Amino acid sequence: MAKKNSPIGIFDSGLGGLTIVKTVQKALPNEDIIYFGDTARVPYGIKSEETIQNYTQKITNFLIKKEVKLIIIACNTVSATARRVVEKTAVEIPVLDVITIGAHSAVKFKNHSHIGVIGTLATIASGAYDREIQARSSSVTVTSRACPLLVPLAEEGWVDNHIAKQILTQYLKNLEGANIDSLVLGCTHYPLFKSLIKKVLHRPSIGVIDPSDAVAEAAKRKLEKAGMLNDGNAPSFECYVSDRPQRYYELAERFLGKEIEEIHVVRLD
Amino acid sequence: MAKKNSPIGIFDSGLGGLTIVKTVQKALPNEDIIYFGDTARVPYGIKSEETIQNYTQKITNFLIKKEVKLIIIACNTVSATARRVVEKTAVEIPVLDVITIGAHSAVKFKNHSHIGVIGTLATIASGAYDREIQARSSSVTVTSRACPLLVPLAEEGWVDNHIAKQILTQYLKNLEGANIDSLVLGCTHYPLFKSLIKKVLHRPSIGVIDPSDAVAEAAKRKLEKAGMLNDGNAPSFECYVSDRPQRYYELAERFLGKEIEEIHVVRLD
Repeated sequence: MAKKNSPIGIFDSGLGGLTIVKTVQKALPNEDIIYFGDTARVPYGIKSEETIQNYTQKITNFLIKKEVKLIIIACNTVSATARRVVEKTAVEIPVLDVITIGAHSAVKFKNHSHIGVIGTLATIASGAYDREIQARSSSVTVTSRACPLLVPLAEEGWVDNHIAKQILTQYLKNLEGANIDSLVLGCTHYPLFKSLIKKVLHRPSIGVIDPSDAVAEAAKRKLEKAGMLNDGNAPSFECYVSDRPQRYYELAERFLGKEIEEIHVVRLD
Repeated sequence: MAKKNSPIGIFDSGLGGLTIVKTVQKALPNEDIIYFGDTARVPYGIKSEETIQNYTQKITNFLIKKEVKLIIIACNTVSATARRVVEKTAVEIPVLDVITIGAHSAVKFKNHSHIGVIGTLATIASGAYDREIQARSSSVTVTSRACPLLVPLAEEGWVDNHIAKQILTQYLKNLEGANIDSLVLGCTHYPLFKSLIKKVLHRPSIGVIDPSDAVAEAAKRKLEKAGMLNDGNAPSFECYVSDRPQRYYELAERFLGKEIEEIHVVRLD
């Protein structure tokens, strides 16, 4: 049974979700955090719903064993296709996911009528952002676009060169042509492209929405309300992955924005 | 126990290995073929050796149950890191892999002293091409380069646009600067870029080597020598995958170069 000083569990298909760890650590500096990145089976974004649900089940069981007090689904693809699996498995643990929160912050962002969403193939194909945004504001139009090259581009470290610029120009062309007035970054890798996206968009009035800040704020509110904020002052961070791929320390540090002491490997199958 | 009319088993981490099925069907039009693509866990190229060996073990067991008479490892990453796993598991079945054959055809290609190799992160990090080429000709220099964006680029279908051209230019710049006189396409996805690669290279004398033709020829020689050529005339093709990702029929047909009647899904974990 989770207590107030239990850790927060955050997971993603790979290392991209460390961008969420970063914002959560900033908003909740006293919290212990356990992160799981499914690097043996990344990327999820090109896989079927059934397979993603199967993998999500195993990760949720891992986090339950770690007695987490809150689960944050940092993966847009899991949020889009397998949130129910997390909720059904971790029945007594509150769950936050990046899409519900991303949709919420997109709608309240400013007075706009046309929201653009970019994400992986699976996230976009699921229509989850469309549903969540329109459930909150039926007068809003949503136009979305899968951008499958952005994840490998971020992992290559090409987030601000001329190639990244051309790929983004290609991907964003139709969205801008459709007259969106804000753009949701529907994948944890995409914040790395934030400054380049702002350069590529011709209309500077288009708001670029990164859900990760809102996720950290939502986690804070939820724990406060439940009286579950950690009252210790020596926060720990444990980072687990399912595989040791090439350059994984380098990659993890790029997303977290600082050095990681140790990354543990656990096999879930 | 495999007989002469048993099928040939061909496998890859995903659908890219269908480029090998295509050349094998052309060289051996009477053979039954069983293909397995591990689409639930693709791509292998960014994963660790241990994980790749674990997945390879399961695929080999699947092909053994199908009583194949020959196994072709169409995946460069598996060839580089897990060929021994296939050989130890399928002890009585002959095994061919794209790297051994690719290295062989690179060395005999023409009189050259400097071979360039491009492949996935795992293939290049393994040094397998370097070892296999230098074991055959110690006077040859090998320069290799990981090109992690090419697989997602091929899956996006961008194999001949200005973005693909710039990415290839970036990847091939140092290889050409190093004065290679031939270039091995060390990944089954890369033949899709063959004509663009030829355009991007400044020196037309650089030979571009696609190992898939040599693989089909090697399979033919091996079966002929063992008296194991199929003497039927109604060849079958069975295509198995471990997941149904987005657009997988479209993608499979792009690699195979023709329509596929049915793709079966089997879960291996």
